[in-house]
Amino acid sequence: MDHSAKYKINIVSHNKTITAHEGDLLADKIQKAGINLSVYCNKKGLCGKCFVEIVKGKLARLSEREELFIKQKRLDKNYRLACLHKIKSDLEINIPEESIIQEAFILKTGIKLPVLINPPVKKYHLQLKKPEIGIPYSLSELLEKYFRKKKLVIPLNLLKGLPDILERSKFQITATMYNESEILSIEPNDTLSKNFGIAIDIGTTTVVVELVDLNNGESIDSSTANNSQMRYGSDVISRISFAFQDSNNLAKLRNSILRTLNEMIKQILDRNKIDNSHVYEIVIAGNTSMNHLLLGLPVKTLAVAPFHSVFAHLPPLSADDLGFKINKDGKVYISPNIKSFIGGDISAGLIASDLERRKGNYLFVDLGTNGEIVLKTKERFIATSTAAGPAFEGMNISCGMLAIPGAIYKAEYKNKLVLHTIKNKPAMGICGTGLIDLISVFLDKGVVTPKGTIINKTKRIQITDNIYISQKDIREMQLAIAAIKSGIRMVLLKNELKKEELEEIFIAGAFGNYLNIKNSMRIGLLPQINEDKIIFIGNASLAGAKALLLSQQARKKIESLVKRIQYFSLATDPLFQRYFIEALEFKN
Amino acid sequence: MDHSAKYKINIVSHNKTITAHEGDLLADKIQKAGINLSVYCNKKGLCGKCFVEIVKGKLARLSEREELFIKQKRLDKNYRLACLHKIKSDLEINIPEESIIQEAFILKTGIKLPVLINPPVKKYHLQLKKPEIGIPYSLSELLEKYFRKKKLVIPLNLLKGLPDILERSKFQITATMYNESEILSIEPNDTLSKNFGIAIDIGTTTVVVELVDLNNGESIDSSTANNSQMRYGSDVISRISFAFQDSNNLAKLRNSILRTLNEMIKQILDRNKIDNSHVYEIVIAGNTSMNHLLLGLPVKTLAVAPFHSVFAHLPPLSADDLGFKINKDGKVYISPNIKSFIGGDISAGLIASDLERRKGNYLFVDLGTNGEIVLKTKERFIATSTAAGPAFEGMNISCGMLAIPGAIYKAEYKNKLVLHTIKNKPAMGICGTGLIDLISVFLDKGVVTPKGTIINKTKRIQITDNIYISQKDIREMQLAIAAIKSGIRMVLLKNELKKEELEEIFIAGAFGNYLNIKNSMRIGLLPQINEDKIIFIGNASLAGAKALLLSQQARKKIESLVKRIQYFSLATDPLFQRYFIEALEFKN
Repeated sequence: MDHSAKYKINIVSHNKTITAHEGDLLADKIQKAGINLSVYCNKKGLCGKCFVEIVKGKLARLSEREELFIKQKRLDKNYRLACLHKIKSDLEINIPEESIIQEAFILKTGIKLPVLINPPVKKYHLQLKKPEIGIPYSLSELLEKYFRKKKLVIPLNLLKGLPDILERSKFQITATMYNESEILSIEPNDTLSKNFGIAIDIGTTTVVVELVDLNNGESIDSSTANNSQMRYGSDVISRISFAFQDSNNLAKLRNSILRTLNEMIKQILDRNKIDNSHVYEIVIAGNTSMNHLLLGLPVKTLAVAPFHSVFAHLPPLSADDLGFKINKDGKVYISPNIKSFIGGDISAGLIASDLERRKGNYLFVDLGTNGEIVLKTKERFIATSTAAGPAFEGMNISCGMLAIPGAIYKAEYKNKLVLHTIKNKPAMGICGTGLIDLISVFLDKGVVTPKGTIINKTKRIQITDNIYISQKDIREMQLAIAAIKSGIRMVLLKNELKKEELEEIFIAGAFGNYLNIKNSMRIGLLPQINEDKIIFIGNASLAGAKALLLSQQARKKIESLVKRIQYFSLATDPLFQRYFIEALEFKN
Repeated sequence: MDHSAKYKINIVSHNKTITAHEGDLLADKIQKAGINLSVYCNKKGLCGKCFVEIVKGKLARLSEREELFIKQKRLDKNYRLACLHKIKSDLEINIPEESIIQEAFILKTGIKLPVLINPPVKKYHLQLKKPEIGIPYSLSELLEKYFRKKKLVIPLNLLKGLPDILERSKFQITATMYNESEILSIEPNDTLSKNFGIAIDIGTTTVVVELVDLNNGESIDSSTANNSQMRYGSDVISRISFAFQDSNNLAKLRNSILRTLNEMIKQILDRNKIDNSHVYEIVIAGNTSMNHLLLGLPVKTLAVAPFHSVFAHLPPLSADDLGFKINKDGKVYISPNIKSFIGGDISAGLIASDLERRKGNYLFVDLGTNGEIVLKTKERFIATSTAAGPAFEGMNISCGMLAIPGAIYKAEYKNKLVLHTIKNKPAMGICGTGLIDLISVFLDKGVVTPKGTIINKTKRIQITDNIYISQKDIREMQLAIAAIKSGIRMVLLKNELKKEELEEIFIAGAFGNYLNIKNSMRIGLLPQINEDKIIFIGNASLAGAKALLLSQQARKKIESLVKRIQYFSLATDPLFQRYFIEALEFKN
């Protein structure tokens, strides 16, 4: 309590009392009291979102804009914008629920991580003042004056249509602002409610697109598909090799993924009856190879030693230039790469799991076609990657499939083999988690030896009439598991940490909640520690992309984080080869 | 003299002695002593331009980069970069001429205005360190590290070619930086000497293109042509009307001027054997209508009350997007508009004449198709514009022509009419200054009355066998002169200033030095004041464009200046009509 302070502010709604000096801004004091006041426009009186009810005390004179907002929102006369209200007496106030920033929960599983909604893309509904003959301000100046900006970037494209839009709408428009400095769209009348973004996770095998309402952070719909680049190679290495065989191949890979994404975006928008002009930004989280291929950047440097990428981070790009079918002046933000094969999917995952703020030692493991491992100790972040191949995603497996309806995702032995399929659809194949369960069961039953040999003569284990596991399938799984297992072992060893010293292990990846922890430990995929310490966080890459879509703070955080993370190369360490061979055996 | 200071620095070359504290940066101290040390890279040790010879005193250890520069430039071992040298003893130094920033003189006539060369476009020659397997920095990070920038904007286009260029040139490249934050080009090996920009003045009637060496500010070549939009209307109003008659017409006007400019640029580059990829920026100064038409912006708002423009200022634009054939990632900077019809040509002219820094009352008059008048008093800037029509540029005149070889630019009566043509070529027609002289002579001789009537019956005055002045020509000139005359009168009146209170009148425009002051006063174009106060500054618009090309400071200045200038509308003042009619008479 500041005793030199003159006034007391009693925030009845939040049961808090704070003090203030003459002329202090009410919004500042509310924020200092730890209340997440909605200051969408950065306290410039533009968005009308921080209204509070002044129950007792001196009311400041209503500004022109406040008056307009009060009329529009049908508020009582004792409401004031906290960002315009200077304190001149003791106050008793109520902060309505609408004036508190919404939180969006980013991860669907594992950890509840709220993100305060403060997206780079913001919409404002405004009534501009017409130019007058005596002071004929240009149209661009009218916008600068409204937003109180000396410089506002307005694309030529928008300036071309501006006179017409203003004439039609009688100068009442909705403007979309980007990073508080650039106009992305100008639409006639009030289109505030139509404000969307898209989060995309580009995996080597699987692609996920999520449509997000930028006003409240709600996930409206999502869609999953195979990465259509698969036809040019199932893993990263084969695609990279394909890319520099012929100068046209890079374009083929780029066009392939772009077409897939545009089709997915179109479908998801169509079924939600949303016009693509109301999608203002896409955030893409993908591994280094995937984002290079999407951007049409040469991947040769990723293929040969010292295995480096062309870019680490990029400024927001033009969606139109890249070929994405959203708003013509929309943006594409690429989640930054950390180093080499540790890409934007991992940096996004680290944001989604909020690893930076956690105390103690944490392991973050992304189980995809590429297995990335990040160790956070008290002092530092160390990241490495290891090629697991696509087996965990059901690829290169005789009867393998993605974790979609009809996939055997879970198996157990209760007197007989019991199979569970996603959505209880008739079994069509086996996904990664199903494979792990099945191998674990067959190890217990002695059908498969710890060295991975199927003991029967056919070298094939029939699961249903049409579904089986072959000897080759087991070998694929052994390689995938060994990559992760030896990677984790190396990272811990190099940092002189025992697995018991880990607070938690976050498992990200397509596996989601389906992964059976006991079985994963049984076959050696995960280290043998207290089961409670294993947290499945699902598609953290997609969740991170969503966080980046919704929060300017998340972007600042990720951009500084990627510079802090140290890279650790497994390939150059001779010990890794030994560990890898040891890890091929199914055991912990 | 700072008596607490520890050390003395004797700058032998400049005959100055300064003091310094332990650890002070030598570059800072030299600058404080008022010496224009060349700190091209903002004292980051990147450009190697601020070498000084340390004659006596403690030499700092050579940094890696200094060593490289000393080798390249073959300097003695006692040379150090002033921007890296921390003072640790008394010093005696010599600053070589090469370490002083060059000055470029902007105006060719009238005022000597030096501009310190500090262009937005800067080239650096650098040897990058290759990525290593243990720390595989991305290529973009290598550049960021070199330039000590956390964020460096590198266009995707450049990133695509980067691996190849680095491989070919063994990581030795020349990078072109824009506004200290963006890379415009990456070229293999040392291309420092190939660094060009183009200044353009787009007048309603005449277009001038000037090729500038961005390393030293030298004007390499220039070229003048008619504005090819003339075919769609000789004055601004007729072109604007044409533009919104049909939606294709705007594109026609835009393409017309763009084609002219690209042809002029190609010619000038070809004849100087310069590749267009080494031109990194264009600065364009044009009146509001001209810059709107060039950008393809709708001009309807300029045609109807309240006569406002679409934009006032724009961030640098992409040359490629606009259709200019220079470096693919090159920029186009548009000199900002002031208000309505007072455009980027005038703001550039004000920069070229450095009006802001002058004390007292000044008048700036641009005599073009549009006549713009800016009054600078002790307190404020007031600007207005008046439609003079193209007569001053020899258009709409029976035998009129631009001020190019063969034009009668000067006439006097010495017992008989004596004509002077530009470059003494056979007379082909009459340009603006020639018309003024001729009218003045004919007024004296009584051939034309003060009301503008040709007294002979044919209503035509034969000048040579083929060249004559018609009654209509006289009327055109009367209108043009009256517009300027009444405009100046109104501006002075409204600010309660007498013409005698003006320090100077700067006359900008195509007229250049050719305008005869006595005759101009005789016919009423210029107010009757002391002749010494009339200063012809030539094409100030083009000179301003050149200043903007060469100086980051000039850009900051112009952007704040245009916001300060008050607009004064002649059209809305009923007094103007009366003054205009009075001004039609040839008298002062």
